[in-house]
Amino acid sequence: MNISNSITDVRKYVSKWKLEGLKIGFVPTMGYLHEGHKSLIDRAVKENDRVVVSIFVNPTQFGPKEDLANYPRDLERDASLCSDSGVDLIFAPKVDEMYFDDFCSFVDMEGLTKGLCGKSRPIHFRGVCTVVCKLFNIVSPNNAYFGEKDAQQLAVIKRMVRDFNFDVNVIGCPIVRENDGLAKSSRNTYLNDEERKAATILNKALKLGKEALDNGLRECSELVDIINKEIQLEPLAKVDYIEVVDSLSMEKLDIIKDNVLVAIAIYIGKTRLIDNFTYEI
Amino acid sequence: MNISNSITDVRKYVSKWKLEGLKIGFVPTMGYLHEGHKSLIDRAVKENDRVVVSIFVNPTQFGPKEDLANYPRDLERDASLCSDSGVDLIFAPKVDEMYFDDFCSFVDMEGLTKGLCGKSRPIHFRGVCTVVCKLFNIVSPNNAYFGEKDAQQLAVIKRMVRDFNFDVNVIGCPIVRENDGLAKSSRNTYLNDEERKAATILNKALKLGKEALDNGLRECSELVDIINKEIQLEPLAKVDYIEVVDSLSMEKLDIIKDNVLVAIAIYIGKTRLIDNFTYEI
Repeated sequence: MNISNSITDVRKYVSKWKLEGLKIGFVPTMGYLHEGHKSLIDRAVKENDRVVVSIFVNPTQFGPKEDLANYPRDLERDASLCSDSGVDLIFAPKVDEMYFDDFCSFVDMEGLTKGLCGKSRPIHFRGVCTVVCKLFNIVSPNNAYFGEKDAQQLAVIKRMVRDFNFDVNVIGCPIVRENDGLAKSSRNTYLNDEERKAATILNKALKLGKEALDNGLRECSELVDIINKEIQLEPLAKVDYIEVVDSLSMEKLDIIKDNVLVAIAIYIGKTRLIDNFTYEI
Repeated sequence: MNISNSITDVRKYVSKWKLEGLKIGFVPTMGYLHEGHKSLIDRAVKENDRVVVSIFVNPTQFGPKEDLANYPRDLERDASLCSDSGVDLIFAPKVDEMYFDDFCSFVDMEGLTKGLCGKSRPIHFRGVCTVVCKLFNIVSPNNAYFGEKDAQQLAVIKRMVRDFNFDVNVIGCPIVRENDGLAKSSRNTYLNDEERKAATILNKALKLGKEALDNGLRECSELVDIINKEIQLEPLAKVDYIEVVDSLSMEKLDIIKDNVLVAIAIYIGKTRLIDNFTYEI
């Protein structure tokens, strides 16, 4: 496995592979890899001839009061996980390799990015789309793998790929959970013991919501109430949003129909955690 | 030569050429080709193994009161010019091949796009960048050719390519002029005889400006005055802008230094024409 912090070097590897007709899989990450990432990497290794993992804590997707400085980093451990998993190349650039001082081009999306996480993180998806656009141009993968935990991100990336005609197949992979149901996230490391226990409320509340849907509930406002009441039982939890949206357009729904995404963001202390499920009628 | 209106077909041609290791040149146009376009095509044919010309009057770069509906079109004549010039593939998509109804992703640029043409055409460069981003992803050229007549567009595209890490070499080609100095433009066909004569004022005024620079003038405001006075001599001409900017950043200058762009936009009747020169100290 090779590790590079240089765009030029990555291009060299990739163009050689392309000329050999090899299929390239790509897993873009912010590092501090957990089993959620590993599930993406494993699938990429299985479905492609060569796999590139990027590790880059992208500053343009963090708001001024967010956790950019504190975001956990451990390149050595990440590299060992990648190497063990059969990754061919890690791209781990420094910030100034990705952004010149006079960088001024951005990908903006109307609609899909405005609700859910986009509401409390107004510049987040601009940053995500911009860096993914850059990474796609650097790595030019055939397949790119994203986790379904970031459901809105996945929908946004799919839309950008469609709208901008990127020749990349975007593949969403299921949420990986701890034994007690908490979705794996690099941000779980921010939680102290008490908070860690409290965080199980996310999945518990979503499970209740899913049960209600299984039992025939179709009013979105009632579904939100059920989830909200459960979360209120946990004193450490503060709701950012509980939303029921169309899983493609991210538009708010009144009545459950077709493919819906039920997504929540909750603060446990200072840590913001997200979770979701999709439901098909 | 092949003509296609399908993104899928263009990808098929291009990926075959790529696997053969062939170098692809690309000339994006809005059609109604003139000798300015031909100079780009000739250079692309000379410098590449395969050449793709796109012909697409891109709606997203036209403002609501601009000339989208009237923009001249003649695919048959364009195709014959391309074929005679050694073009391999024309990509001439319909609007709905390029833009789904729920299209919502755009490339926005801060800084470079705000002055000059961006001032009187506020959504223009958003549309240009977005369609060029799409076309680059569809054609994936090694080299792409743009005219220096659209100097701000050229600077904006170069910046987008740098910022988004497109693996495309952007090449600017010199302005091609009529015998009387008027820069070739598809929009020249809008001019009646009287207006056509009046339009020579653009190049005349710029020439005076260049002479002043040759003679040592370095104050930008004085340079603008000289150009403006000359244009005022032509009753049919109305100034949109006369600007002296840094040729890379498009930032307004007070004193001429390094590489400057002297750019003007003038209405002759209802027709808006642009012209420019760059000057190196």
